[in-house]
Amino acid sequence: MRRELHTIIALVENKPGVLNRVASLFRRRGFNIEEITVGDSENPNLARITLVVGGGPQELEQVRKQLEKLVEVVKVSDVTSDKIVAQELALIKVKAPSGARSEIVHLAQIFGAEILHVGSETMILKLAGEEEKLDTFIKLLRSFGIKELARTGKIAMVCEGE
Amino acid sequence: MRRELHTIIALVENKPGVLNRVASLFRRRGFNIEEITVGDSENPNLARITLVVGGGPQELEQVRKQLEKLVEVVKVSDVTSDKIVAQELALIKVKAPSGARSEIVHLAQIFGAEILHVGSETMILKLAGEEEKLDTFIKLLRSFGIKELARTGKIAMVCEGE
Repeated sequence: MRRELHTIIALVENKPGVLNRVASLFRRRGFNIEEITVGDSENPNLARITLVVGGGPQELEQVRKQLEKLVEVVKVSDVTSDKIVAQELALIKVKAPSGARSEIVHLAQIFGAEILHVGSETMILKLAGEEEKLDTFIKLLRSFGIKELARTGKIAMVCEGE
Repeated sequence: MRRELHTIIALVENKPGVLNRVASLFRRRGFNIEEITVGDSENPNLARITLVVGGGPQELEQVRKQLEKLVEVVKVSDVTSDKIVAQELALIKVKAPSGARSEIVHLAQIFGAEILHVGSETMILKLAGEEEKLDTFIKLLRSFGIKELARTGKIAMVCEGE
């Protein structure tokens, strides 16, 4: 079985337990869930789940069809081969004694990160962007010491009309 | 029972089913989960879950203690009364025929939103910020017509050292 990473978008009813039902169906079929993100969609009654899963394309199409049979699931799309935008958000609390601050601020400027809080020994930075950009920024901040990190998973959207 | 919204941060082992076990424990005790966000933490073996739940403070402290007894759960904090930064991310696909584009671009500039894609009839905008800011931006974009919306839940971090 050829395993590769797929990005899946599911629109589901905004009810308790739906997230788990969707995740369980992937796991029972042997798919590894790398990322799962849930949040509001354009429809107040529907939540949008973005999944990054590893598995073969044929097996994935079977799971996609099974998912769409669940009453709480409205639509499931595999957008892996589409042109998409995919973005994530991170908050990073980095060690920032007074001597390190200007270097951290400079790095934040280069990456377009926002400084949300400055304490006596730490700073909280915010960066939204593509996964690789966030990975690079976080890697560079490690030399200062990362006290705390919080990342969302990915949200993705298909580009239309070119 | 006094019901109010609490922001909870949990550090858990990065294993299948942990997210569901945490969510189930809240639901069984009658807590309504308004938001759940899961993603990477500063420790590659641990995921960080941010929950926004409605319930009474005493009951919540009981659930927090129960959660910390689960082997996969490392730490659970109720940060509701702390000074925190809390941020979300949204992608918005808005109807943007040529005549509407400049007005949408202007609105994006005011809010500090980024334009990720321009198609013949739509634009995809990205905005990261506090919940209320995202709510306002999305509300203003509704007059153009929102084709698609994807939001992450909240990630939050306690401000230190003042």
